[in-house]
Amino acid sequence: MSIYLHDIPLPQAQSRFQQALAEADLWRLLGVGTIPLDENALGRVTAEPIWAKVSSPHYHASAMDGFAVRAEETSEAQPSSPIQLSVNSEQSPTQAQYVDTGDPMPGWANAVIPIENTEALGETGRITPAVRGPSSIRIRASVAPWSHVRPLGEDIVATQLVLPAGHVLRPVDLGAIAAAGHHQINVARKPKVAIIPTGTELVPIGSQLEAGDILEYNSLVLAAQIKDMGGEATRYPIVKDDFDLICGQVLEAAQTHDLVLLNAGSSAGAEDFSARVVEKLGILLVHGVAVRPGHPVILGLVHRKSNEESASSLPLVAPRNDTIPIIGVPGYPVSAVLTVDIFVEPIIAKWLGRRQKELPIETATFTRKLVSPAGDDDFVRVVVGKVGGKLLAAPLSRGAGVITSLVQADGLALVPSGAQGIEAGEPIQVRLYRSKSEIEQTIFCIGSHDLTLDLLAQFLSEHDRRLVSANVGSQGGLVALRRGEAHLAGSHLLDPQSGEYNISSIRRYMPGIPVKVVALVGREQGLIVKKGNPKGIIDLRSLTNSQVRFANRQRGAGTRVLLDYHLNSMTIPPESIVGYQQEEYTHLAVAASVASDRADCGLGIAAAAQALDLDFIPLFQERYDLVIPKQFADDDLLSPLFGLVADSPFREAVSRLTGYDVSAMGAIILEDE
Amino acid sequence: MSIYLHDIPLPQAQSRFQQALAEADLWRLLGVGTIPLDENALGRVTAEPIWAKVSSPHYHASAMDGFAVRAEETSEAQPSSPIQLSVNSEQSPTQAQYVDTGDPMPGWANAVIPIENTEALGETGRITPAVRGPSSIRIRASVAPWSHVRPLGEDIVATQLVLPAGHVLRPVDLGAIAAAGHHQINVARKPKVAIIPTGTELVPIGSQLEAGDILEYNSLVLAAQIKDMGGEATRYPIVKDDFDLICGQVLEAAQTHDLVLLNAGSSAGAEDFSARVVEKLGILLVHGVAVRPGHPVILGLVHRKSNEESASSLPLVAPRNDTIPIIGVPGYPVSAVLTVDIFVEPIIAKWLGRRQKELPIETATFTRKLVSPAGDDDFVRVVVGKVGGKLLAAPLSRGAGVITSLVQADGLALVPSGAQGIEAGEPIQVRLYRSKSEIEQTIFCIGSHDLTLDLLAQFLSEHDRRLVSANVGSQGGLVALRRGEAHLAGSHLLDPQSGEYNISSIRRYMPGIPVKVVALVGREQGLIVKKGNPKGIIDLRSLTNSQVRFANRQRGAGTRVLLDYHLNSMTIPPESIVGYQQEEYTHLAVAASVASDRADCGLGIAAAAQALDLDFIPLFQERYDLVIPKQFADDDLLSPLFGLVADSPFREAVSRLTGYDVSAMGAIILEDE
Repeated sequence: MSIYLHDIPLPQAQSRFQQALAEADLWRLLGVGTIPLDENALGRVTAEPIWAKVSSPHYHASAMDGFAVRAEETSEAQPSSPIQLSVNSEQSPTQAQYVDTGDPMPGWANAVIPIENTEALGETGRITPAVRGPSSIRIRASVAPWSHVRPLGEDIVATQLVLPAGHVLRPVDLGAIAAAGHHQINVARKPKVAIIPTGTELVPIGSQLEAGDILEYNSLVLAAQIKDMGGEATRYPIVKDDFDLICGQVLEAAQTHDLVLLNAGSSAGAEDFSARVVEKLGILLVHGVAVRPGHPVILGLVHRKSNEESASSLPLVAPRNDTIPIIGVPGYPVSAVLTVDIFVEPIIAKWLGRRQKELPIETATFTRKLVSPAGDDDFVRVVVGKVGGKLLAAPLSRGAGVITSLVQADGLALVPSGAQGIEAGEPIQVRLYRSKSEIEQTIFCIGSHDLTLDLLAQFLSEHDRRLVSANVGSQGGLVALRRGEAHLAGSHLLDPQSGEYNISSIRRYMPGIPVKVVALVGREQGLIVKKGNPKGIIDLRSLTNSQVRFANRQRGAGTRVLLDYHLNSMTIPPESIVGYQQEEYTHLAVAASVASDRADCGLGIAAAAQALDLDFIPLFQERYDLVIPKQFADDDLLSPLFGLVADSPFREAVSRLTGYDVSAMGAIILEDE
Repeated sequence: MSIYLHDIPLPQAQSRFQQALAEADLWRLLGVGTIPLDENALGRVTAEPIWAKVSSPHYHASAMDGFAVRAEETSEAQPSSPIQLSVNSEQSPTQAQYVDTGDPMPGWANAVIPIENTEALGETGRITPAVRGPSSIRIRASVAPWSHVRPLGEDIVATQLVLPAGHVLRPVDLGAIAAAGHHQINVARKPKVAIIPTGTELVPIGSQLEAGDILEYNSLVLAAQIKDMGGEATRYPIVKDDFDLICGQVLEAAQTHDLVLLNAGSSAGAEDFSARVVEKLGILLVHGVAVRPGHPVILGLVHRKSNEESASSLPLVAPRNDTIPIIGVPGYPVSAVLTVDIFVEPIIAKWLGRRQKELPIETATFTRKLVSPAGDDDFVRVVVGKVGGKLLAAPLSRGAGVITSLVQADGLALVPSGAQGIEAGEPIQVRLYRSKSEIEQTIFCIGSHDLTLDLLAQFLSEHDRRLVSANVGSQGGLVALRRGEAHLAGSHLLDPQSGEYNISSIRRYMPGIPVKVVALVGREQGLIVKKGNPKGIIDLRSLTNSQVRFANRQRGAGTRVLLDYHLNSMTIPPESIVGYQQEEYTHLAVAASVASDRADCGLGIAAAAQALDLDFIPLFQERYDLVIPKQFADDDLLSPLFGLVADSPFREAVSRLTGYDVSAMGAIILEDE
């Protein structure tokens, strides 16, 4: 803990790093290689401008199958008074000569008459079926000079610029380069990036896991990012948290690579060696950047020869690149990915000589208030959807350990340093990972989560729809619909008075908004308990046992309403339940609480118990509905959804899940005018 | 010529093909393969939904380096009244235990206090520098339960859906799949596509060219397109135009591929065998589609066994895929590329189970009137730029042989069948090849073309600007500026009265529009003649020799104005010049005319003569200026341009070209208020 990190602003970190690279003569094209012009050239970057060696076509070429003629000899031809031109005749000059598309024009000809505009005549002057053998042709229209001729250089003129340097090669580019007479090209050398995972707690992917083991998959993600950027990655084996071992591995990797990514140990903990390794092997430029997630970033340079060796009697003429950059990448996967995007992409782009990749930016309305540290550039993963013509961005989990938040993200919203956060309803700039058309095919679902929504998403994807669901509980979903923030909400809110589901809540939380309510599933709610039910839990009465720790759902969740309804009718006071205050936001989180012994039981659905191999005590049957404002119910966007709930393949797939009753699926519970 | 093609509408062709594929059970996921989860999985498509095998984290993990505690024991801590917690003490219960980030939480703990919020105390109760050895810690704030803890399943809960089927894998997806406990994945098998180039006139790329030789580069472009789509291409050697040879090659390729692309011979000429080959080996479904460029498309199926073999005594139990699709791809490169985009991408997408790739669509204003065959879907390559806030689309060459039109294209505009074309100023939908930000960094230059503009484009690309230039002659450029269709125009219009360049024309064609005019280069105009000047041409008087054929420039071109000015002052009547009516649109086209013996000479610049290895007789010096409306002159977009013309590296690069004088470069000729 002797090293403390000092976060510096992102632009300052970037410019300090870039300047150091420039001083080490590393802020330039890395190198040039000549490769054959084949499909593997795709995606490579031109290292220099490509000039045409030859013209294309390199001669005047017929553009049609037909007869080459002198245009001036056709000027009299009319539909009613055709003229006749002799073909390949011995008598000089010949008037017409058959040419295939691409054939060189005879020197005397300056136009082509397409074959379909000619009548072939035999020796007798009669029409003949022979194709290439007519003695003459008859035409009924004149042609302008150079009609149906591709003049020399129509496509490319020798010496012209075909492509500039720094161009990322696409399929058509390869054709143009070939047409210009090249069969190989000079491209930027691929940067070689070493990725060194460090950490005693790390185990390779696919390992059997013990508590404390952490799957090492960052090197995989980082290698894929490097590949995506046009570099070549080497993944080194996991190195234990040992200063000397790490130094050795970095030095070895530095000999054969252009950049080293050291992951992780970039923070300031007892076993965070990265900063000290960089200090020992080179220059520590930056330790800590005011960016979230990802602030414990290390930027530095390492010498290819260790300090000892440099000081030895070796000749002082060092190789040109005796120094290479090193980046200490934070360990949390989201931090790691963003660090590589922010700090590595500009270097790779510079080394390849190409433009930096840029995501398209759109302005969206932020759906929730979000607090952000004022000094940091805060990158927030968001899902994006278009609801009622308005582009909405809803924040995903902010945990730097939650890689699924990057998988689900449709974009990154930046809350810039200086801002203390953002209010619900404020506009925000979002860098989009997805195309506009994908976002326009997105159905935004909010409210209570149910496992069948995952299945529905899978079925909808076959109908070119993307279902994005945010879990805010049933009540939260209805409120979001009122605010116009989603296309539909999943809801299972019991009305304690009527015993009916959802309708009274819809009227309360969405007054005056016409809706369509469609039943999705009936499902069992019950107590999720440990395997073998060691505490002998029977029903809600068991919760009053002080030895039984309960995991509750958040206020507004349908399951919470259900619990409170039954506690009330059984006159069980909530205070008598240990853990009543401990709120979880999903069925699966409740099950996870039980699985990990944070609690002994919780109320939830059977599927959640099954997911974590827990036991389940069924108690109630409830209905889970989809609530859809009328303005979206007739929208083309949602029509595949209505198709699916009326369709047997989806129904059958749901019925295969434990604890679901599909008999009501698709029933219209309510439809306002 | 026995086969005639009948163009059918595009949607009809597509649905006929798709239906035939469905009937042959080929309109589905092609196959599934298991691959290791490494960076080579990037871009592959999930063949089935991926469900989590394990949770992540799979235990409650500390999210920080710090001390695990019971939250309830910290509730009294305040800045002014700290509390002390014993560490790793023998006495039971322990109150605090050191944990690194990622360590499992002790069973008794439910929160972590980050190390920076603790004071380490030695045995005596004094503050100690020891890191892991304190006897107790002092804290000055309480922590909430589960603070700085990553609960089991925070990222992924076992059994949850990680990714749907049909998902194209990105770097972060690989991490999520690994985190969910997988080390291999089932992906869609890559479709194998055979590409067979046919044509006696074809020669491999890099060949020395004779007249009539055509470089075979379509197979390269097609293979790269297939690779881009996620398929695997095999490029076969060139096959001569011989029915039996082609049949043999198709049959051989069909044995080991999922799709055959036969290029070309897809039309109805004497040597167009493709349709007959398909008829012989299988079923000809479509011959001719009403789409431009590209209408002579063939869609069909071929049997893997030849008809003879099928009819033989072989067992009738055919392999499941005894039939595969074949596409006769037209020979012109632009037609070939569009045919593959239109007909192959949907099949590859279906076979891989992914969404079809879609280009973003924007509405732009079309700059020119364009006539289009009413029955065809007409795909027009356009350059796109934003001028004065308006997105403009200017059509590029429509020749199907001009592959550079695809290289230069920023997008494809569709003039749908039914429309007879489009008027200048009409809105049109453009599928964009480039990002919005690239288009916003585009400088639209119109007018007279000069070779230095290519060089300027190269220099501007280093300043994140793209220079797109359309060649419409000097006068055309000024008219376009008046209509707000470009940011600047290149112009070299001599005023016959004053002998000055450009100013009087600017006032005539752009009345009332304030401009800035900057000198770019002085350049020599002269007569481009054949090597060795066989006709003994001396000056403009030589043009009146009836043996001398002249290639002229179009009306409105600065070079044409220059010619007419000097002819007038030398009292040479235009009628006395053979070829005065033959108009070319660029200096290089004039040079090409001379090089190919269409003409003996033409007026143009030295660089054009040099490009085609011709001789040059210098006659006049003229000035070539950039004309910039004031509204763009101060725009940030153009500032790098002004920087370059004031800068020596660009000046030096231009001075190395033949026939240029850079002494006036950057001089402000005129600047309106």
